[in-house]
Amino acid sequence: MATVEEEEPPLVLVHRPPNFNFPFKHRLQTRFCLLDPLDSDPPESTHSFFSRHSASIRVLLCVDPTPITRDLLSLLPFLQLIVGYSAGVDHIDLDECRRRNITVTNAGKAFSPDVADLAVALLIDVLRRVSAGFRYVRAGLWARNGEFPLGFKLGGKRVGIVGLGSVGSEIAKRLESFGCVISYNSRRKKPSVPFPWYENVYDLAVNSDALVGCCALTEETRHMISKDVMTALGKEGVIINVGRGALIDEKELVRLLVGGELRGAGLDVFENEPDVPQELFSLDNVVLSPHCAVATPECFDALEQLITANLEAFFSNKPLQSVVEF
Amino acid sequence: MATVEEEEPPLVLVHRPPNFNFPFKHRLQTRFCLLDPLDSDPPESTHSFFSRHSASIRVLLCVDPTPITRDLLSLLPFLQLIVGYSAGVDHIDLDECRRRNITVTNAGKAFSPDVADLAVALLIDVLRRVSAGFRYVRAGLWARNGEFPLGFKLGGKRVGIVGLGSVGSEIAKRLESFGCVISYNSRRKKPSVPFPWYENVYDLAVNSDALVGCCALTEETRHMISKDVMTALGKEGVIINVGRGALIDEKELVRLLVGGELRGAGLDVFENEPDVPQELFSLDNVVLSPHCAVATPECFDALEQLITANLEAFFSNKPLQSVVEF
Repeated sequence: MATVEEEEPPLVLVHRPPNFNFPFKHRLQTRFCLLDPLDSDPPESTHSFFSRHSASIRVLLCVDPTPITRDLLSLLPFLQLIVGYSAGVDHIDLDECRRRNITVTNAGKAFSPDVADLAVALLIDVLRRVSAGFRYVRAGLWARNGEFPLGFKLGGKRVGIVGLGSVGSEIAKRLESFGCVISYNSRRKKPSVPFPWYENVYDLAVNSDALVGCCALTEETRHMISKDVMTALGKEGVIINVGRGALIDEKELVRLLVGGELRGAGLDVFENEPDVPQELFSLDNVVLSPHCAVATPECFDALEQLITANLEAFFSNKPLQSVVEF
Repeated sequence: MATVEEEEPPLVLVHRPPNFNFPFKHRLQTRFCLLDPLDSDPPESTHSFFSRHSASIRVLLCVDPTPITRDLLSLLPFLQLIVGYSAGVDHIDLDECRRRNITVTNAGKAFSPDVADLAVALLIDVLRRVSAGFRYVRAGLWARNGEFPLGFKLGGKRVGIVGLGSVGSEIAKRLESFGCVISYNSRRKKPSVPFPWYENVYDLAVNSDALVGCCALTEETRHMISKDVMTALGKEGVIINVGRGALIDEKELVRLLVGGELRGAGLDVFENEPDVPQELFSLDNVVLSPHCAVATPECFDALEQLITANLEAFFSNKPLQSVVEF
């Protein structure tokens, strides 16, 4: 064991936003030498720090969806691996990674159950008016005005999953137990999945009472839930989004909600987070959540295990988990 | 058909609270002669109206949980059937019904899926802090203060169902799909059920992370979720109630929540509805709902079908559905 302890711990460059809570950093530091420009005193600029270490860096740990641009990558000529911290990787220049043959891992399935739980909660909340009912009680209106208006049943609703990956599959599994009728849209039909597949999200919307956005944000999926799609969903349709804000044309979503052209929406993500369109605040049929679909300690434990396993696998030439295909 | 049309429609006495929305009354009136004291002009007292019709009444339709006392029953010497409108029948003097051999039907399973849906929504809301997160967004705190604090994962939680009847079974089915570990308490162990049974709710609480109250309110179940039970559930425990408010010792529940002795609570029912303890309004870990677990149009459609079927069965001497055993 003595020789192992005397070895230098492997170098891992850290890219993170200032003031981001990175709960397991101290545990990673027992196994790896984390180089973090924000730890310098005074903090060093990313550019200068990365340039200074460029010759020795093979691995970059990207905490939170901090942008990784082509310029940033150009500072790291020997980079082989980006270990991601989130499920989506839309903050990483994947074209450049492909060109340079850099491998990218993401949070894989670590977050999927928790994201699915929140998606279901948002859908029930919108249909059954849970948040609106809570406000009714808090405002003392139950005692004053009597019965709260009816909501809508979840069972029997046709739910269209936009992106049947790891999160979408977990959502489908849960909603089936409520008696919902599931169908989905994805690039390709999934042979092992029993649910009807629609080649495009417009047809999915026509045949759904609710759409749940849970796919990755790419140039193809940006604004894929468009005005036309939402109009096809119709006045009794509900929009849920736990993917990325820009999957939906947010301006059109707001316009349709304000105009009463949709039954409601439950949103955990927004186009310009943490900014949320103010028009939504006063709508009784909208539930807003501060991008916290993955925010449980158990989620971060699972992520820590995955990141640790991937860093160890890389430095011992073993296979990586949750490699992003692009 | 002519002879059928000339027959007098069968008489059904109606007992309902003033101003209660009774959405399918007009449809029942096409098949039955509904005698309703509140329809008289001016409205007649229940006592006088019931007395006046006492000789001809065999069936009483009890809309909403309007109390049916021994005194009221004494006005109806020929009563054979009470058709209830709710799942619980704690508003009916069942001892007197038993003595006089009056049959009671309730809402049976018509409400169960919707009640289960709300129970699940309340549990996720409390654990994942959905309502609290919504207030955080609405108050503009996301943009100002950054990340919302973590909630707790639903998967893996040990959920104790207090009363594994129709509603409890629907809740269990749903929560299993989230990866929860189910156990239950009921008077007797149910042989066909795979979940662990606890003979008393105290032991259930000791072995649970959350308790869900969904049994009927009787003298035996009143305050069965007592101070001791909630203390046994512990500081990380969550209380959900979609049954009747008085299943829980509400004063103790409030005291424990205010004192931080429970992780949170999601409550659709209260001891003195529509009064809700004001102390709960300011707690971030409590979700309050105005007894609307059954409040969907689909629920009332199912109830209408059940009530209509039971009235027709009674007047044609056919078997009744959802007869209450007592």
